[in-house]
Order: sequence, then C-alpha cells, then structure tokens
Amino acid sequence: MIKVVNSIKETRDIIKSWRDKGYKIGFVPTMGYFHKGHLALMEEAKRLTDKVVVSIFVNPTQFGPNEDLARYPRDLNRDIRLAKNVGVDLIFAPEASDMYSPDFQTWVNVEKLSQGLCGEFRPGHFRGVATVVTKLFNIVQPDIAVFGQKDYQQLLVIKKMVQDLNMPIEIVGHPIVREEDGLAMSSRNTYLSLKERESALSLYKALIHAKALIEKGERSSSKIRQEIKELINSYPLTKLEYIFLGDPDTLTPYDKTIKHKTLIALAVWVGKTRLIDNSIINIPS
Amino acid sequence: MIKVVNSIKETRDIIKSWRDKGYKIGFVPTMGYFHKGHLALMEEAKRLTDKVVVSIFVNPTQFGPNEDLARYPRDLNRDIRLAKNVGVDLIFAPEASDMYSPDFQTWVNVEKLSQGLCGEFRPGHFRGVATVVTKLFNIVQPDIAVFGQKDYQQLLVIKKMVQDLNMPIEIVGHPIVREEDGLAMSSRNTYLSLKERESALSLYKALIHAKALIEKGERSSSKIRQEIKELINSYPLTKLEYIFLGDPDTLTPYDKTIKHKTLIALAVWVGKTRLIDNSIINIPS
Repeated sequence: MIKVVNSIKETRDIIKSWRDKGYKIGFVPTMGYFHKGHLALMEEAKRLTDKVVVSIFVNPTQFGPNEDLARYPRDLNRDIRLAKNVGVDLIFAPEASDMYSPDFQTWVNVEKLSQGLCGEFRPGHFRGVATVVTKLFNIVQPDIAVFGQKDYQQLLVIKKMVQDLNMPIEIVGHPIVREEDGLAMSSRNTYLSLKERESALSLYKALIHAKALIEKGERSSSKIRQEIKELINSYPLTKLEYIFLGDPDTLTPYDKTIKHKTLIALAVWVGKTRLIDNSIINIPS
Repeated sequence: MIKVVNSIKETRDIIKSWRDKGYKIGFVPTMGYFHKGHLALMEEAKRLTDKVVVSIFVNPTQFGPNEDLARYPRDLNRDIRLAKNVGVDLIFAPEASDMYSPDFQTWVNVEKLSQGLCGEFRPGHFRGVATVVTKLFNIVQPDIAVFGQKDYQQLLVIKKMVQDLNMPIEIVGHPIVREEDGLAMSSRNTYLSLKERESALSLYKALIHAKALIEKGERSSSKIRQEIKELINSYPLTKLEYIFLGDPDTLTPYDKTIKHKTLIALAVWVGKTRLIDNSIINIPS
C-alpha cells in the first residue's frame, strides 16, 4: 500500500510513526514524471532502508524566469502507479504555496560548487535546489537520500551542503540510467521531437568518443574539447552550451591537461530542450 | 553529572541514546562566559524538556573583521560549574576547526530580517548566526531551543529560518534578564570600566524614558527618537549607533507614528564596547 500525501504535517506524522518503530527511512526527492532513472533511485533506497519516501515537487525556485517551469511534464497518477510497483511507501507531493509562504526569505547557498557548469547558465538554480532539499530533508528526516549522477553538479552541491551544515543524512549517488541507445534518461526527453531525439544522442556519443580518445592516449584538454564540439555540432538542431573537463570532486577545470580522474560534463540544447550528460573517466596509472 | 564534549560524533551519540529512551531534548546555543541571562535560558530549557544541551562556541563567522572575536571573554571551567548548578546535562564545546573545514562554503541567509538594525552595522553577522545555528541544530537535533530576547533581531531571524526551512524545532524566546539597576545582562559587560558601566545604563534609562513618553500619549517617532538620542548623549563615553522604532514581527520601521505594538531597539557604543537593548511597548487600545 502506497500512501500519497500533500500535507507537510501528515507526512511528518506518518514518518514519525515509522521512526518510532525503528525503521530506517530512505528518501528520493524528485520533480516527478518518472522514468527508469527515478525508479532505479527508489529501488536503491528500498535496498538500503525499510521505508522509502519519494517527494514529487516541481520546485519553482530552481527555475530561471525564462526556463521551462510552466511546461515541465507532470502526471501524478502515472507516477503513483510506477512508484507503487517498485515498493515506495509514501509519496509526498506538496503544493508550492505550502512550501513557500509569501514572505519566504531563507536561502541555503553552496557558494563554490554552485559556480561553473550548469551554475553559470542557470543563475540561482543550485541555490533553489539546496534550499528545497534542505526543506525536504527537514520534513522527511531520512537516514539516507538517493540522488542520480546525471545531475552530477547537483549531487556534489548536496553532498557538500550535508557535510558543511552537519545534516545527519547519508547521501548516495546512483549511476546514470540510459535508454538502449545510450541517451541519459530525463523527464525532459519527453519534449523531443523524433528528429530532435536523434540529435539528443550526440551527448552520449560525444562522451563515448572522448573516452576512446583518452584511452588512445590523448591528454590535451583543448584537443578533447575540440573533438567533442565537432561531434555535437555534426548533429542537426544542436547548440552546445558548455563542455567541462575537470576534477570530479572540486569541479576545478583542467585547462591544459586532463588528470587521472576526469569529469566530462556537457550541456547541449536540442531545439528548445536543454539536455545534460556526464561521465567520469579514470586513466589507469 | 554534566558531560562536557568537544567531538561532534560523541555529542550525537550521547543525544541519540537519550532520544532512544524517549527523552525530549532542550538546547541553548551560547558563546559561553555565562551570566544570569544564559542560566535563565538553561533553566527554561530544563523546565520544558528532559535533557538540556548547551553549546559553547564563539562562532568566528558571525564576527566582522574589526570586531571583538579575539578578545571575546572565555572561561570554560567557570561555565561548566555554572551550567552544572542549573542541571544542564551536556555541554558541547567544539573547536572552530571541527565546525568549519578549510573548504567550508555553505551559508544560510535569512534575507529580509537580517537587514536593518544590527544587520546594517554588522554585515554578514546574521548569515553567520543562521549558518552556525543550523549546524548546531543538525548536530543536537533538539525538540526545543531557547534564545534570549536581548538579541531580539537574532531571535526573529532564527524563528523565520526554522519556519522557512521546516526545521522540526520549537523556538522559545526568553525575556531579557537585567542587573539590579536595569542593565541588560551581556558577556560584553565585562569589557566595561567603572565609568563605562555607569554610562552603560543609558540604554535601559532610554527605554524606560521612551515607555513613559508613550504612556503619556506621545506617538511621534521623530519626537521619541529625539528624546532617546538626547538621553543617551547626556551620558559620557556613549556613541549612539542606532535607534529602531518599528514592527516587532516584521522589523518594518515606523517612520512617522508608532503603532499599538512597537519594538524599540538600541545599539550604543560605550567606549570600545558595543551594547544593545530593546523593549516591546504595547499601547492599550
């Protein structure tokens, strides 16, 4: 039996009754419109804990004024069915007005890790993410929370926030789940036309190509960036936003030469849809 | 038996053992060098909960570069003795290096309520307060936390932070505790020379005078401000920093006419010591 609740108080009460019974609480914060990536996070949470709570909240404070808040896909009934099938115990789906009062004014900001990559092109995005995740953590008070590695910078921001603010929660990162052809699962893939769907594969192809280049011995950042850029641009309807090559822990860019552990992260517009993908490449030493 | 611990992990473990026994946890965050004001907060926490935790931490991030961080008074042994006498169960006295790692970068900011009053003259102060209190709350996870009303703006900032971020904690404000002659208790009173101690009373006298004025029917903000200013300036060694007359909930200033509920808050330098005091005046309607 899955419970679906939108009240903060009722959510707290249900989870408290579980905690009082000694259950370990797992949490997966989402914006809904589930795909296999989300379900994999829920399954991981289920594996690690006794009761799994999933939040569905399209958080307005992490969207910029010209972003896709209004058209972000939503289907609560489908989400409930899918979550139930993987054994989720509680869906918390609050209203925006219950999460943000008119005089809301408290923000959590992870200053350094929120800069660069997506932070450069989505100002305020990670402040919105850190703030809403803090709120959700304080409502759910989970033992463990699971986040996907597709939003790699977000995962780092949350891990740092938890460490810096001494939040009593273990953060688990889960590998990217991909379509059969390699496209990283994303609720935003639903925006893609058939033509755009073909070009969306350019991100994955570029990561594969960069990995092969590095395995063949290439170490020059500019050379790798150039090859990624050319590959992305060879697909129609694409517009490259950024290529990041750098340290996967600190997000310090590798300007000249890549190192033994390199994060490659991409953001690419395909038509009006912004897609991201990433891979961590380990060079055998 | 009072426990004194500086390790975050050990503090968590002790408090978890209490929570597992069903004890309600009370918390009083302090910067140490206890006076009767602090002890009253601890007694209040003791009255409301089963186990009382007091933190002693002179938090560097709430001091400005030209403030009194280095000379802030400290006496841990005296503090332990005093806390023990009022029945405190645990003192958490961490090192700054355990609270702030070299790459610390996550800040909690209560934007509007941190502006004006002390926030205007101590930029970054309330950001430091909100951040360290969030950290301490996450370490102690109290049911109730008690703060003094002498730091009135701080109390409002913390209450708003708890509300906005859904922290599962009840915040209790405790009335100002005063010396026999009316001076508000403060660890910083220890800085005062005998001459300065006499002038320090000007804050209380000004609040009493303003209250009497209002009771006699005065409603003009500028008139009340003028009288407060003259009274403060009539004491040697004083330098007025601000007089605030406004709404005690929103900190909106009353520029022309005071209302039925008015916060009067003052900051005054007495020699090299900065003192604050406040009072909420209710006009019978």
